[in-house]
Amino acid sequence: MERLPGFRDFFPEPLPPSEVWSAEARQAIFAAWRRVARRYGFREYDGPPLEALELYTAKSGDEIVHQLYHFTDKGERAVALRPEMTPTLARMAAARERGYRKPLKWFAIPQLFRYERQQKGRLREHFQFNADILGESDRAADAELIALLIDALREVGLGVDDFVIRLSSRDAWREFFQAHCPGSAREYDFFQVVDKLGREKPEASAAALRELGTSLEAVRSFIAEGRATPELQGILDNLTARGLGAFVEVDYAVVRGLAYYTGPVYEAFDRRGEFRAIAGGGRYDQLVKLMSGGKVDLPSLGFGLGDVVLTELLRQRGKLPPAPPPAEVFCLVEDEGLRGETLALIQRLREGGCGVEYGLTPMRADKQFKRACESGARFTVKVERQESGGCQARVRDLRTRAESVVAMDAVAQWLSEGGQSL
Amino acid sequence: MERLPGFRDFFPEPLPPSEVWSAEARQAIFAAWRRVARRYGFREYDGPPLEALELYTAKSGDEIVHQLYHFTDKGERAVALRPEMTPTLARMAAARERGYRKPLKWFAIPQLFRYERQQKGRLREHFQFNADILGESDRAADAELIALLIDALREVGLGVDDFVIRLSSRDAWREFFQAHCPGSAREYDFFQVVDKLGREKPEASAAALRELGTSLEAVRSFIAEGRATPELQGILDNLTARGLGAFVEVDYAVVRGLAYYTGPVYEAFDRRGEFRAIAGGGRYDQLVKLMSGGKVDLPSLGFGLGDVVLTELLRQRGKLPPAPPPAEVFCLVEDEGLRGETLALIQRLREGGCGVEYGLTPMRADKQFKRACESGARFTVKVERQESGGCQARVRDLRTRAESVVAMDAVAQWLSEGGQSL
Repeated sequence: MERLPGFRDFFPEPLPPSEVWSAEARQAIFAAWRRVARRYGFREYDGPPLEALELYTAKSGDEIVHQLYHFTDKGERAVALRPEMTPTLARMAAARERGYRKPLKWFAIPQLFRYERQQKGRLREHFQFNADILGESDRAADAELIALLIDALREVGLGVDDFVIRLSSRDAWREFFQAHCPGSAREYDFFQVVDKLGREKPEASAAALRELGTSLEAVRSFIAEGRATPELQGILDNLTARGLGAFVEVDYAVVRGLAYYTGPVYEAFDRRGEFRAIAGGGRYDQLVKLMSGGKVDLPSLGFGLGDVVLTELLRQRGKLPPAPPPAEVFCLVEDEGLRGETLALIQRLREGGCGVEYGLTPMRADKQFKRACESGARFTVKVERQESGGCQARVRDLRTRAESVVAMDAVAQWLSEGGQSL
Repeated sequence: MERLPGFRDFFPEPLPPSEVWSAEARQAIFAAWRRVARRYGFREYDGPPLEALELYTAKSGDEIVHQLYHFTDKGERAVALRPEMTPTLARMAAARERGYRKPLKWFAIPQLFRYERQQKGRLREHFQFNADILGESDRAADAELIALLIDALREVGLGVDDFVIRLSSRDAWREFFQAHCPGSAREYDFFQVVDKLGREKPEASAAALRELGTSLEAVRSFIAEGRATPELQGILDNLTARGLGAFVEVDYAVVRGLAYYTGPVYEAFDRRGEFRAIAGGGRYDQLVKLMSGGKVDLPSLGFGLGDVVLTELLRQRGKLPPAPPPAEVFCLVEDEGLRGETLALIQRLREGGCGVEYGLTPMRADKQFKRACESGARFTVKVERQESGGCQARVRDLRTRAESVVAMDAVAQWLSEGGQSL
């Protein structure tokens, strides 16, 4: 029985040679994202992985709709596995924003689904760190969010030599479009052509742009000029004040594929240009209003940072998070008559927060000791009978090989003090 | 636009009055489960939420198959949203067990899906803490896993007055069945009737049991007698040695609904009997062999602990995890000429691990101070111009109202030392 194409199994460490996706590395990345989000004062939310199909059909644009995993459920509802988080967020915020102080600063780490051809860095599911600010139109919020994105990447070990944020502006492109294609209503088609420039053949892009009333040359020279609008300059200045200026550059080749973006947009790339975009985001000032039928007006912005390209980049740079540390203690049972006392001690140690392994079944002493060494534990603990009839624990530091005899009810305390006296 | 029935939105704290599902409480519960699993030496894995339909149709039994969310994807594959984790685990373990030391001790926290009528404590999705041991037939492994379940419930704040593990045995019921219904092949039908005893009308159960060749009276008297088999007694003794005996009792009314269980089985219930089962598990010694076409033989066992009933129980007992602490610092910007310096300081503080909030846009000083107090921050920090032209930070402890002036590059250090000198 095989898993479905485009989906991942996440194995525990140490990974078998044929596997690359580690559940524990994934959780370490998620933990890093949560730490950074909380430092920035963002609060966590989540929504259902299955939503009504219509949540996506109107607002996200054709590209995402063509790639939807959708079906009709047993209640005859048209439903879809979520391809992105923003529509769910807009639905939730529109319903409950009155209960929260503005602006809302919310994050989530959803798993998302797209039915598309498999490519490098592009599977049928991925996890995405989503952070959004709702209810703030000032561009200071755009800068705050880009700073959060930069720190989310730095927190997993990437630096200024590893990635760059390419900053662009839907407003600048809108001005270009209105100047070059006056009277045209096909602004979104135009953004789509620009978004695909790097992936399409130049002739195809040129034909599409001619059809829209402009030219590939005009678009290329606008990108080449790359002058920051006052709005983008404000964002750059803000990030420079934080000492993050080196992580960002203006690049109008970025425009983003989704229909709902309205202002500054950006994508994160690896510096060497070997991977697809690591993250992308921007403003979507109209979406919450649209989703709430005009009832709630929250100018908003957000980004999504996926786990697939990021993990491939971390792997290439040798920066994948290490496996969590092994259990600290391995308990040896050499006298089966003392297994009950050993179980009692194991329970006490674990209740004190200590990781403890032991052999579940009777085993030769030398085999147990070998297992203890292989487990990576720092200490072995063995319960022994005292001459008085009571029990004591013999603790051994596997690094120094030093041994010590400790009273049964003092082992937890003794280990928590690091056993330095050994 | 509404969310689908049976699915949950998880909002950030503080929850609006009409919402009960908190993303942050959920994450606190998951974090507790991960802590306990690691103390027991369990390693994390995960699989896809979407699997081939046939993964479930043969092995799990009719009940779960009737409730499957399944559909045909764009590649004409019959697929299903996972209703339980064990088949995925068996698939993964069968494929890669050779890369790991035995027994495997693995855990996951998947979201699972069932299309069924909504009832209290029973939605169409839930999260489940799954822990399994693969490759150990000794009943010491069953005890180890039950101890882990007990500690996973204690770690979220429940005690011996809140819940009980009801321990039973498929082997004992199999003996009963073979003695009362000799020659019958309908063992699984019999387990299903026993599993539903508490929910079905007695007449319906009696009729079903008569049809199988036994009687409701015989079944009831077997349950009432409730004598531990030697196997169950061994598990009870093991747990008693750990000091966990009070959490477990033998109760043959438990039999579990899934087809693949083979040995000891158990469920966790709230002591007052007000909720559905909180958790359930048992042995499934044949499943990995079945899933691997006979190639891999790993006697196995596991449990699932869901988030829905557990959260309802915690809520009723006033034991829901509190919201995470607010950002420690609120930065005030009273002089807009110093916003750049303030942003630089905010960045340094956050890089040092400190949570920092501030007003994104210019705001009156009294309004900023009000926001700071409402935020729950412990300190306000305000950058000021020195007479020399440099900057300094004025730090205020909002509890004691004490103020202190600190050099710009010393604020992070000063706060990390708790500001006791104030």
